[in-house]
Amino acid sequence: MSLLVVGSVAFDNVETPFGKAERALGGSALYFSTSASYFTDVSLVAVVGEDFPEEATEFLHSRGVDTRGLQRTKGETFCWKGKYGFDLNEAVTLDTQLNVFGDFHPELPADYCKSTHVFLANIDPELQLEVLKQIENPEFVALDTMNFWIESKRDALIEIISKVDMVLINETEARQLADDPNIVKAAQTVLAMGPKYVVIKRGEYGALLFCEDDEPFFAPAYPLEAVFDPTGAGDTFAGGLLGFLSNNAEVTPEKLRQAMVLGGVMASFCVQEFSFNNLRDLSDDKIAKRFERFEKLVRFNCLES
Amino acid sequence: MSLLVVGSVAFDNVETPFGKAERALGGSALYFSTSASYFTDVSLVAVVGEDFPEEATEFLHSRGVDTRGLQRTKGETFCWKGKYGFDLNEAVTLDTQLNVFGDFHPELPADYCKSTHVFLANIDPELQLEVLKQIENPEFVALDTMNFWIESKRDALIEIISKVDMVLINETEARQLADDPNIVKAAQTVLAMGPKYVVIKRGEYGALLFCEDDEPFFAPAYPLEAVFDPTGAGDTFAGGLLGFLSNNAEVTPEKLRQAMVLGGVMASFCVQEFSFNNLRDLSDDKIAKRFERFEKLVRFNCLES
Repeated sequence: MSLLVVGSVAFDNVETPFGKAERALGGSALYFSTSASYFTDVSLVAVVGEDFPEEATEFLHSRGVDTRGLQRTKGETFCWKGKYGFDLNEAVTLDTQLNVFGDFHPELPADYCKSTHVFLANIDPELQLEVLKQIENPEFVALDTMNFWIESKRDALIEIISKVDMVLINETEARQLADDPNIVKAAQTVLAMGPKYVVIKRGEYGALLFCEDDEPFFAPAYPLEAVFDPTGAGDTFAGGLLGFLSNNAEVTPEKLRQAMVLGGVMASFCVQEFSFNNLRDLSDDKIAKRFERFEKLVRFNCLES
Repeated sequence: MSLLVVGSVAFDNVETPFGKAERALGGSALYFSTSASYFTDVSLVAVVGEDFPEEATEFLHSRGVDTRGLQRTKGETFCWKGKYGFDLNEAVTLDTQLNVFGDFHPELPADYCKSTHVFLANIDPELQLEVLKQIENPEFVALDTMNFWIESKRDALIEIISKVDMVLINETEARQLADDPNIVKAAQTVLAMGPKYVVIKRGEYGALLFCEDDEPFFAPAYPLEAVFDPTGAGDTFAGGLLGFLSNNAEVTPEKLRQAMVLGGVMASFCVQEFSFNNLRDLSDDKIAKRFERFEKLVRFNCLES
C-alpha cells in the first residue's frame, strides 16, 4: 500500500486572537503528508521556490515521506496570509501570492504512478484530472476542493468528482456545490455525481460521512480548551483518514468510521499550536490515547428495554 | 418522581424558507411539557390569555400533563413572530407581544411545591428565583436562559445559576455569559458559578455536556433531510433530558448521557414539522427506534492494539 498526495506547500502568515505566525510552513500537501505519515508510507507531489528551507524537507524525510515529487523551481514559494476572528471556523484571506504554485504542473516520478491510494488536495480540478490519469490502477482516490474552483471550474470539478471514491468538502462549500442549503440533500447530490463517500467537514463541530449504501456517520471534534490555529486542520484530518485507510487491506464500514475518528484525532492535535508544530513529534501512544478520549466523548449505552 | 416546568405558553408566527405557520402553539413550557410527557408526569406553570384555545389544554391533558398551574387571565396570550433563513440555527425576532406574559407571576398549586425535578425555562431570573424558593426539597433543578437576561439581569441570573444543578444554554449565550470565546472555558466559568452540569446547545450540531468531575460528553444531532422549523427545539431537548432523568431514581453519568441523547431524539422529531405537531403523536417505539439511529450515527469500534 502506498499513499500519494498532490497539493500545495506554502508559507502561511496567520493571525488569530491568540497570536500570530509569520512564514510558518504550511500548505495542504505538507499538513496531509505529516499527518498521514503516522499511519503509512506517503509520497508527496508539490512545488516550492528557491526560498524553501532545507530543514523542512529534512523533517519530511525524518517522517519517512518520499519527497522526490517535490519540485524546486526558480522563484518564491506560494505564500498565504490569513486572519481568524474568535470564530475560528472561518479564515479571512488577506493576501495570496501564488508564486511558483501559479505554474504548477504535477510531475510524478514513474513509481508514484503505481500508488494504491491518492489524495488530490485542493488544487485546480484540471490538475487533479491530469494527476489521476497518470495513476495506473488506484484502489482509493479522494479529493478536496474549495469555493474558488466550484465557481470558476465547475465542469472540470464535476468530472474529477465522478472519477474519485471520496469527496472531502467543507459544509459551506458542499451547500454551494450542490446548490442546496440542507446538508443531507447536498451530500446526496454530491454522491449522485459519482463518488462512494462524501465527507462534510464542519470545523469545530466535527465531520459527517455519507455513503451510497449505509447510514451516515458522525465523527466528533474534541472540545479543546485552547485552539491556537485551525490552519491545515482539514488537510490534517484527511491525512489521518487516508493514512489509516491506506494501511488497511480493505475499506470496510468499520474501518471507515475509525478512519474518520482518527482524522479528527489528528486535526485536534494540529489546532493546538501554530502551523504543524504539534504534528512534528507525536507517537502511536499519544494518538491511541486521544482516540480513546474521542471514544469516551460520544460513548453511551443502549436503553434498557 | 414529579417534574415541574415554569415557562411560557405562546402563539408563534414563524417563517422559514420552507413555509410559514401563523398563531401556531408554542412557548417553552408547552414544548418542554409535551416532550417530557413521553417519559414522566409533568406539571406546568404558565399564563395564557382569554384567546387561548381549549383544544390545546385538552391536548396537554391527553398527554397526562397537569395544567392546574396554567393561569388564564384577562388579555391576550404572549405572541412571538420570528423568521429563519437557510441557516436554521438562529431566528430573527420580528415582533414580541408579551401581553399577559408581561405581568406573569408564577403561582404554584400547593402540591407542585413537592416536585422532585424542576425546569425553570427561559423567563426572568427573578421569577426563576421566586419559583425555586417555593419548592420544598427539589432533587434536581435545571434552568435555561437567554441573551436578554444575561444583559439586563446579570446579578439575578448568576444568583439563580448558583442554586441549580444544571444550566442549559445556547453556545453563543454561553460565550456571552462567561465572556470567553472558547466554549470549554466558557462552560468551566459557568460551572464555577455553582451548577454541577452545563449543557451547551449547538443547534444542528448537537449538544455538549460538561460536568464538574467527569470528561465532557457530546450528544449529536441527527442530520435530517428536512428541517422545517427549529422553534422549540431547545425546550423539546430539555423536555427529553429532564423527563428521562426524573423517571430514574439516580442521576448517574450513564443516565445523564442517555438523557442527553434522548433530548436530541425529541428535538429531532420537533424540527421535522411546524410548531410541536410532530410531538403530538409519538410512541415509545418510535422514540426507541430513533434512539438506535442516534447510537448508530456515532458508533465506532476501538482500535486494535
